[in-house]
Formats: sequence, structure tokens, C-alpha cells
Amino acid sequence: MEKIILDCDPGHDDAIAILLAAGNPKIDLLGITTVSGNHNVENTTRNALSVCTAYGIKVPVAKGSPGPLIIDQVLAVEIHGDTGLDGPVLPTASFELDKRHAVDFIIDTVMAHEPKTITLVPVGPYTNIALAVRKDPRIVERVKGVVAMGGSYTRGNITPAAEFNIYADPEAADVVFRADWDVTMVGLDLTHQALATPDLQDRVRAVGGPIAKFILDIWEFIATTHRGLLQIEYPAVHDACCVAAMIDPTVFTTEKTDIRVELAGRWTKGMTVCNFEKMGGRHHFGGTASEQIDFRHTVAIKLDHPKFCDLVVDALERLTRGKGDPLLPHGLTAEETGL
Amino acid sequence: MEKIILDCDPGHDDAIAILLAAGNPKIDLLGITTVSGNHNVENTTRNALSVCTAYGIKVPVAKGSPGPLIIDQVLAVEIHGDTGLDGPVLPTASFELDKRHAVDFIIDTVMAHEPKTITLVPVGPYTNIALAVRKDPRIVERVKGVVAMGGSYTRGNITPAAEFNIYADPEAADVVFRADWDVTMVGLDLTHQALATPDLQDRVRAVGGPIAKFILDIWEFIATTHRGLLQIEYPAVHDACCVAAMIDPTVFTTEKTDIRVELAGRWTKGMTVCNFEKMGGRHHFGGTASEQIDFRHTVAIKLDHPKFCDLVVDALERLTRGKGDPLLPHGLTAEETGL
Amino acid sequence: MEKIILDCDPGHDDAIAILLAAGNPKIDLLGITTVSGNHNVENTTRNALSVCTAYGIKVPVAKGSPGPLIIDQVLAVEIHGDTGLDGPVLPTASFELDKRHAVDFIIDTVMAHEPKTITLVPVGPYTNIALAVRKDPRIVERVKGVVAMGGSYTRGNITPAAEFNIYADPEAADVVFRADWDVTMVGLDLTHQALATPDLQDRVRAVGGPIAKFILDIWEFIATTHRGLLQIEYPAVHDACCVAAMIDPTVFTTEKTDIRVELAGRWTKGMTVCNFEKMGGRHHFGGTASEQIDFRHTVAIKLDHPKFCDLVVDALERLTRGKGDPLLPHGLTAEETGL
Amino acid sequence: MEKIILDCDPGHDDAIAILLAAGNPKIDLLGITTVSGNHNVENTTRNALSVCTAYGIKVPVAKGSPGPLIIDQVLAVEIHGDTGLDGPVLPTASFELDKRHAVDFIIDTVMAHEPKTITLVPVGPYTNIALAVRKDPRIVERVKGVVAMGGSYTRGNITPAAEFNIYADPEAADVVFRADWDVTMVGLDLTHQALATPDLQDRVRAVGGPIAKFILDIWEFIATTHRGLLQIEYPAVHDACCVAAMIDPTVFTTEKTDIRVELAGRWTKGMTVCNFEKMGGRHHFGGTASEQIDFRHTVAIKLDHPKFCDLVVDALERLTRGKGDPLLPHGLTAEETGL
Repeated sequence: MEKIILDCDPGHDDAIAILLAAGNPKIDLLGITTVSGNHNVENTTRNALSVCTAYGIKVPVAKGSPGPLIIDQVLAVEIHGDTGLDGPVLPTASFELDKRHAVDFIIDTVMAHEPKTITLVPVGPYTNIALAVRKDPRIVERVKGVVAMGGSYTRGNITPAAEFNIYADPEAADVVFRADWDVTMVGLDLTHQALATPDLQDRVRAVGGPIAKFILDIWEFIATTHRGLLQIEYPAVHDACCVAAMIDPTVFTTEKTDIRVELAGRWTKGMTVCNFEKMGGRHHFGGTASEQIDFRHTVAIKLDHPKFCDLVVDALERLTRGKGDPLLPHGLTAEETGL
Repeated sequence: MEKIILDCDPGHDDAIAILLAAGNPKIDLLGITTVSGNHNVENTTRNALSVCTAYGIKVPVAKGSPGPLIIDQVLAVEIHGDTGLDGPVLPTASFELDKRHAVDFIIDTVMAHEPKTITLVPVGPYTNIALAVRKDPRIVERVKGVVAMGGSYTRGNITPAAEFNIYADPEAADVVFRADWDVTMVGLDLTHQALATPDLQDRVRAVGGPIAKFILDIWEFIATTHRGLLQIEYPAVHDACCVAAMIDPTVFTTEKTDIRVELAGRWTKGMTVCNFEKMGGRHHFGGTASEQIDFRHTVAIKLDHPKFCDLVVDALERLTRGKGDPLLPHGLTAEETGL
Repeated sequence: MEKIILDCDPGHDDAIAILLAAGNPKIDLLGITTVSGNHNVENTTRNALSVCTAYGIKVPVAKGSPGPLIIDQVLAVEIHGDTGLDGPVLPTASFELDKRHAVDFIIDTVMAHEPKTITLVPVGPYTNIALAVRKDPRIVERVKGVVAMGGSYTRGNITPAAEFNIYADPEAADVVFRADWDVTMVGLDLTHQALATPDLQDRVRAVGGPIAKFILDIWEFIATTHRGLLQIEYPAVHDACCVAAMIDPTVFTTEKTDIRVELAGRWTKGMTVCNFEKMGGRHHFGGTASEQIDFRHTVAIKLDHPKFCDLVVDALERLTRGKGDPLLPHGLTAEETGL
Repeated sequence: MEKIILDCDPGHDDAIAILLAAGNPKIDLLGITTVSGNHNVENTTRNALSVCTAYGIKVPVAKGSPGPLIIDQVLAVEIHGDTGLDGPVLPTASFELDKRHAVDFIIDTVMAHEPKTITLVPVGPYTNIALAVRKDPRIVERVKGVVAMGGSYTRGNITPAAEFNIYADPEAADVVFRADWDVTMVGLDLTHQALATPDLQDRVRAVGGPIAKFILDIWEFIATTHRGLLQIEYPAVHDACCVAAMIDPTVFTTEKTDIRVELAGRWTKGMTVCNFEKMGGRHHFGGTASEQIDFRHTVAIKLDHPKFCDLVVDALERLTRGKGDPLLPHGLTAEETGL
């Protein structure tokens, strides 16, 4: 089992990432931490609790940072609506937040487990992760790695150059990419391949039940904003890609790269500039000759879409069959959820 | 006939651009101006003169700027070799430079012709064009337009973010893209489609003669550097794409965009950030709310490769048949070239 | 009594700030928090504990951030030596650190006291303060204010444009100056007036005792580095100026200003750009027309040097007379210190 | 005699610089070139011609750049009024512009004289100088040097960090300071000492005549804007300081420094960051360790105000006595001026 902490800002695709993490027996979801991003942290926290309540997911949820490290807050209301998860109807949360700040939850949890056993999976802005690194740098060598949704090696979505999670807290992303741990960037180049195609939607519909309906409602809502604003034909299930890779690393191919977050650009702030090892000696970043390039980052390149769909459908089936599945570690009892 | 001034830094693909311009009867090549870029301006000027001498092209050649507007000089020696045109053997130039500086040649020529008749075609760094704009801003409304090789809307070649022509003089590019004239950017996204495929090489070989040999020698030389450093399978004929579009605008499709040259970025200096009209209201550049985005630039998107090859082969045939072609306006006599 | 938390990186002048705070009955020193700056946080923490141990100061000391928020660590070893407090001989600390991280100590303490009663006094890089603001933004409106050593409205000391505390963590300074609380910047323009002149040194010598010796040793050590590297004739007692202003606000004059921390400049990173209200409408920052300038910051301008000297000597006398002074709230007993 | 080309944007203090240059027999004023700055180049050119016409100064005047190298135009209308020289009444110009662009005038003149004999004296934005360097870099080693009004090593006037001439064309200033020639920066730190004190005004009034009236009218006009916007008690005669130093280098003291123009800063664009040799090894610019600092620039520090006043009054007397002075090389005849 892969132990993960899912740091998120639900958010539509975040919600699916939660379901995928909770519904696959290979994932030991140690906790969910929330952050400002798709919406403010009040809303993303409430949404995380509601999703867990609705679908029988029993994990600690710790509320995190109300805004980015340095810059002013940027939200994605035009994509995710006024609640941060417009569209589906969700119940009021029936359980309590963890008492700790997300930053302390991350530090405590990482330090309490064996070294190299926990992967941090941030799928919103990386504010909590960066604050945890700065508050207790020991976590950097203690985690197994970081698998992060965000960035792009070609074009952005919030600006031509920048992807939203990085743009919303570029300095935090800089801290995360410069820290000396293994980071896999799962950026738009990959997640724009993770589309909820009609075929996938049909398979979800065939499973039936409240969770399938929830997922279909999510896709129906973001289909509109994705098509209109982002020119993507079907809804992209960005955040779930990171969880999918924790279950099965072969769900996408990767390459080695060197990632720098642009913090100074006038038109490029928040861009993840990726220098690929394959490109050879000519490539540099335009800095001084003494500039060191290593290729220690990993970036996701090509998704195995059928495999990705299988993982989503499998998790949905397990969650829907529900508490009969002895493999799911995070389940509320049927009584607790009322499903 | 389209009147053009070809501003170049030969450079291998520049040489082919010269041949294409001289070999097509629809192009009235008013002059060639040279600039520092692929190599220093001494070498690029000598190369321009030698190509014209060798292949019977009789046009004014004016030497231009020895270095970029603001930044220190950047050359592309690892791509083009020590002479700026390594590989083919070229004769010593047999004719004289125009007495004027390229900047004055451009201003004089534009002001001496009817308004809206001349297109500037820079295929090296845009230093001369920017200096001409600054020295005599009247040229901006007097030209027909600018069709410029350079930039990219995805990834660069000299750095992950920047294409060489822009990177080598980003402030000049900024002047060119901000001036109030029609600019078409022919960037790497397009020119990496303009490959000298085996099929095109065979057709050139079939024409035979010294010019075909010259072109094949060029491709042989840059095939190595392209494959090793840039990971492009066949040699890209970047600069010739601009001339091809002057002959037949349908050689590539275009879209409207808003281009900003990043001048401040640490990892992105010289990037051409392109905001596409099609992307809708969500897209901005990350600046202030009051920022104005217009979509007055044009960017090349999709090359018609067969049509492009036909144009190259056609020009080669006309130049090779040579002085018998009454349509070519720039020809030296056979005696003058000795071909 | 003014309740303060002294956030520092001792550091020579930091040590004098501690003595001044502990030795004046108007100051209720709630705690000392440490930060990386003049030296790494291990050394600055040990130095804080040692100074407290040596001179009978009984307050909580909480260890803080080991490095800046975003950038790489910058230390001031060439000014403060290998221990961060070279020169004087100090005892091993005899008491324990507070269990909490400085960031949590600050948040807990501020939230546990009445609103508007605590002033934060950072005299090293502002990393802890910024992290506290980001972790729990409620402190911003709960504190009385911030009186911070750092910055300059003319020239810097670590670079021509930047003062050390800001340069060592510019993003943290940006957070502190942009937060919506009252900040007084006590910069180099002021602290370079706070010199340990021969007259002040004589008065300290006249008091006698171990603390006077400690202060004189400090001044002797930094006199060399100040003269050689900073071209200041006598040692500047930077950090003590903030504490002095908490005791008696008339120790310096102030003006209203608008402070921006330069984060993007190539030669100016970490500069505190101050726009003075008095300069009238012409002054702006070079940004867009819509840019808002308010003058809500306060900046120290002119020191009353005699008054400053009196405060230093008075505190020294009280600490030296020691535990007989019923006014000092922080004293160890004579037995505890062995003084 | 010192041969100079005065590159200016009259402008009130520019006009006095012209008078000082024309009125001192040690100055061989080879020409006046104009530039956009205090006002647009149409107005600054007209003002230069009018001043020469009015006061009998017969030198070539060549019109230069209508705007800065890269950035958008910035004028100083609120200081110099709608004409660029509001206040005094000036005649219509009675003589013709030189046919050449200022850039070509500068290049031709420098190349036509012996090496190391001509000093360029830019007292507006450095656009023409930078363009001349870029168009014909041979001038760099051929001139004797550059004595330039602009910049500051403490605070600016158009923004808190930047002085107007640099701010109005920072990239041009960067070219000028980085070119390998001797540059003396005469910045605000110096020119704010060059005040038209009541005593100087009295001496000018005592000379009498139309030129004295002109100068007094200038001072009267800018006294208001200086006091209101810049908080300077008396009018500063910025530009004349450069000419004064050409007549008598002892009119101010200097120090060696290394000047970098900030081009990337958000709040500091156009700042001249000065690193003084005297400050010793601690000082760097905050860049990489490999950064080279030389101290090859000269910066003006302390004005000899009485000497400066003597030079102004002396030139005024000579011009007023007029054509009888056999030493003045630039004089129109009395008939030509009608004075």
C-alpha cells in the first residue's frame, strides 16, 4: 500500500481524486489537507468534508492555508463556481476537522511514520507543502516523494504561460521544486489527456448509484467551463491523475527534466520552465554560464487513457458496493453514510 | 509582385530563403540587409554576398547591426559553424556592399516606394528593423507589413522558453511586436514542420546543378546539428517559410493572437507569449485588470508541406535554368556568375 | 508597560536589544524568538539563550525558521563572525528552549493576550513574522503593531540598494509590509545615527561590571567590521533602536511613507522603496496609472542620540544593580545568574 | 578648448546649459542634438533653435529620436509645461536644422575629428547616444568620454528610485553605462546642490540684459514646480553642471563607482545602482558569485557652489557683452541676433 497525504482544494476534479484514493485498496490515505485555490479555504474544506461524509470516507481532514505564501489570492471561481464545487448536491459534513493546521498535520504525520514511506500529493496550490518545508525542513528527506498536479511544459491555462496551481502560488511551487526530494510534475500536458470521454461517462453511468451520479454531475458542470474557457472537448480529470499514478505508475510515461518556476517574468509569472535531459547540451535557461542544470525532476508525458479509465471505474465500483469490500481501509460503515 | 526586403543572418536556412526569394517571379527582392545572429555581422554579410555571387543574384546588400540593441551578443555557432555557413564551399564575393547602413537602406527604400507596398522579412534577430523604427517611425505605417521568422507559442530552441532570433535580441523583438503594423510571426511551431524530408531532398537532387548541390550541402551540414542538439529528425528550413508565405499565403494557416515578448523573466527572457483569440475570456497575461489585450498579431500554425516543397523546387529549377527565365528580376547574366 | 515579542538573530546589536528590553521597566518582554540571519538559527538561538543566561534574563525563548521563505540562505558571517556573536565570552545556556516553534509561539502569544496589546519587534530577517501571518492571519488585526529593524530609504549595506534583514528574506519582508497592520520601519537611515560614540562607550565603561564589559566587547568586535566593510566610524547599534522606540517613541522622528519591497530587480532585490507622503503628487513607483499609493507605513528619520544613549545606560545600570530593582519583570535571581 | 556635442531636451535647465556652453571660451560646442524627454522632440528641437536664435548662438542643431529605445514615451510636462520651456518668451527660430538625424550627426562628427577629442554631453534621456553606439560602435573608443546628467546614488525624482533621464529611457542608459568608454555620471546627488540661490539670482540680475532676464524667467518658472513637486527650496540647474565640469573639472569632486541600470525591477526600473570602490569587499550587487565588479565609472559627489556660480555669471557676462568677445567661437553677429 502507498501511504499518501492528499493536499487539495475541492474543486471538481479534486473530489474525484478523493474518491479514487479512497476507493482503491492500494492507497492508504493518511489524511486530506485543504488549501485555498479553486476557491477559498473555507469552501474547499467544507467541500472536502462533504464529499467524505457523502461517500463514506473516514480520514482525518485538516484545514490549511487561507492564501498563497507571498502574492495576493487568485481563485478559479469561473471554473468551479461560487461554492468551489458547483453542480452536485452535497450533504452537510457530519464529522469534525482535525484540530491541527494542515501544515502541522503534514509535519506530524510525516515525522510519525517510517522514513521514505509517505508520498505527498498536492493537487491544489502548493502553499501547505511549502509552509511545511519551511517550518520543519526535516520532512524533505523523510518523505518518499511528491507527486504534484500542476504546471505545463508547453502552455498554461490561467495565462498563456502558467497553469493555475502554480500561478496561484508561484513562490510555494518554487520551494517545492527546489527542495531536495523526488518530485513528479503531473502537468496540463498530461492531464489534458485525462478526459472524461463519452465512453468513460457511459461506463460510470453503467455502475449506477449515488457516487456515479456525483461524478457525472461533476463532469456535466465542468464540461461547460472546460469547453468555453479552455477549449477542451471533454472534462479533464486533472487531479485524479496523481492518485492514479500512486496506484499504478505505468498509467503514464515520464521523462527526466529540470523545472524552474518563473517568479520574475512580466508575462510568464508562474510558468514551469522544463529543460529536458533528452534535449542535450545546447539547452540552458538563459542564465549565466555557471548555472547548474540537473535533471532530477520527473514529468508526466503520455497517459494510458484506457488504464486510467479502468482505475476510475474500479474505484467507483468498490465504493458503490461499499462496505462489503474488505480491502478499503477508509470506509465509514453503511450506517454512518446512509448510502 | 510582392516587394520585400530580406533582413537576414546567413546562416544555412537564410541562404535557402535568399534562393527562394530570388528564384520566384512573384517576389521583387528590393534588397538584402544583414545582421548579427547566427554569426557576427562580418560573417553573415560575407555569406550573403557569396551566395548572391555564386548563384547569380543581383540585389543591393546592406550591412547592418553588429550586435543586439541592449543585451550582449549571442551567436549560434554550434548550429551554423565557425563561418556562420559551414559546409558548402562558396566563392569570394564579386560585388560591393551598398554604401548605406542596413538601417538607412531600410528607411530609404521604404520611404522611396509607394505606401503599403513593401513587406519587411526579418529572419534573423530583429535589430535592424527595431533600429529603423526608432530612427524613423514613419516607416511603421508606410510598410505593407512584417513577416518575421522567430518565436514560438509552445517551446523554444535556445532555451526551453525562447527561440533564438528573439532571445538574441529580445528588446528589438519587443519593439517590432509593439509597433502598430501588421506582423506575422512564423515561429518554431511552424518551421519545425518545414523539414527537408528525404522526399524533398530527392527532388532537389533530381534537379541537379550547383545550386541543388549547395542546398543539399546545407542540409547535410545542419542535419547533424539539428538531430543532435534540437532533436529534429530532418533539417528545418526555418527562414524560407517567410518567403514562401510571401509567394503564396496559403502555404500555412494562421490564427490571430496577441504576442508579448518577455523581457524580465529569469528563465523566460526572449519568450514570445501568445494569447490566442480563440481561448476566450479566461485568458489574460497575469498583469493588472486594466491590461489591454488585442489580437492584432498573426501567427503561423499549420504548414502545407507539399506546397512548401513545390515552391522550393520551383525556385531551384528557375535559378538553375538560369538566365533564360525572363521572369526572374534579380539575375546576374551567365557571364557574371559563370554558372 | 509595552508588551513585546523580540524576534532576533543575535548577532551583536541584537544582544544589546535584548539587554535594553530586559533592563527597562516599561518593556514587558513576553518572549524572544530566533531566526536565521546574522548566522544560522542554531547559533542565533544558542546566543540568545547564552545572553539571557549570562545576564539574568528569564523569558521564554522559542527557536524559529532555519532559513528564508523562498530564496537561499544568506548569512552575515563577515560582520558577526563564526559564532554569530564573536568577541565576547558567553556561558553555556542554563535554561531550556520553549517547546514551540517560534511561529507557533508568536501566534499563541498574540492570540492569548488582549487585542492591540502586543507589538512584534523583528530585528532580523522577517521570516518568522511572515510565516505566522500566513499560518494564522488573525494575528494581523490582533497585534498593536510591528516595529521592525531593516531597510533603508537611501542606500543599503549588503548591496548598494538593499539592507541585510530585507535582502536575507525579501519575500518575508514583502508579506510584513503588505499586511494590514501598523508597521514602523527602523532602517539604516536611522540606525546609522545610533552610533556607539566614544562618549557613550565612556559612560558604559563608567557603569562597570560584567554587562558593561559584554557591551564594550561587542562594540570592540564590530567596530572593526563596521569600519572596514561599511565605512561607519563607530559601531552602529541597529537593533536596539526598535526597543528604544518602544520605551520612548520620541527617541526618533518619523514620517509617513509607502514602502514596497523590490522582489524582481536584478540589482535591487530586497530594496525597500519608500514613497514619502511629503513628496506630493508627482511621485509614483513607475507602475500603471491605476496603481494605489497609500502612506500607511511609518519610517524612522532622525534619532535623538543623547536620549538614545540615556536609555542604553539606564538599562545597563538597572541590570547591573540587578535583582534589587523591583521594576524589572524578567529577572533571574542573583543565585540563578551568579552575577 | 574642450570639444563637446550637447545632447539635450530643452527644457529649462537645458537652456542654461546651452548658454553656459556657448558663453565660455573653453568650450568648443560642435553641435546641439535634441531628443524626446522633458517634452517631445518637436518641442525640444524648436526650443533649442529658439534659444540659439535669441541669444546669438550659431551651431549646428540636429534633431534626434522621437521616443525611447524600448519603452513607451515618458515626458516631464508637469515640470517644464506644455511647450517644454514654459515661462520665458522666445522668438521663432531664424535658422535651419542640420539635415542629418542627431544619431548620424553624432557619428559623423565624432568620426571626422581626431580620436579622443570629443566629449559627448547628454543631459536628456540617452536615446541618441545609445542609438549612435549601436549604429556605429567605433565611436565608443573614438570619443574622449561622456559626461552625462542623470541618475542618482540615493533617491530618484520621477520615482523614489529613479531619476527622470534614466527612467525615461532606461535601456539607453544601460547601453551608455555598459559601453567601454569613460562615463561621468552627474546625478541628482550633485545637481541638487546646484541651486539658483537668491545670491546667484541677484548676481544674474545685476548683469542685466535679455539673457539675464531669460535665465531669471526660467528660474521663476521652475521654482514653483521644484518646490511643489520635488521639495527643493531653490531651482536646481541640473544640466549646466555637466558643462561646468567640462570648463573646470574641479567644480565638483568625484568618486569611482560601478553603475548598473535596473531594467527588471517592479518598483526600481531606471534606478542607477552605484557600487562605490570605497565600500570594500562586502559590497556586491546581489547577483552570482562570478559577477564582475569594476569601478570604472566616475560619479559626481560634491559641488563647489561658489565656483559653479562664477562660471554661470561669467558666461552670462560674455554672452551679454556679446559679439565684442573675441573668445566666443559660436557667436552670431549682433546683426544676426538683434540683441
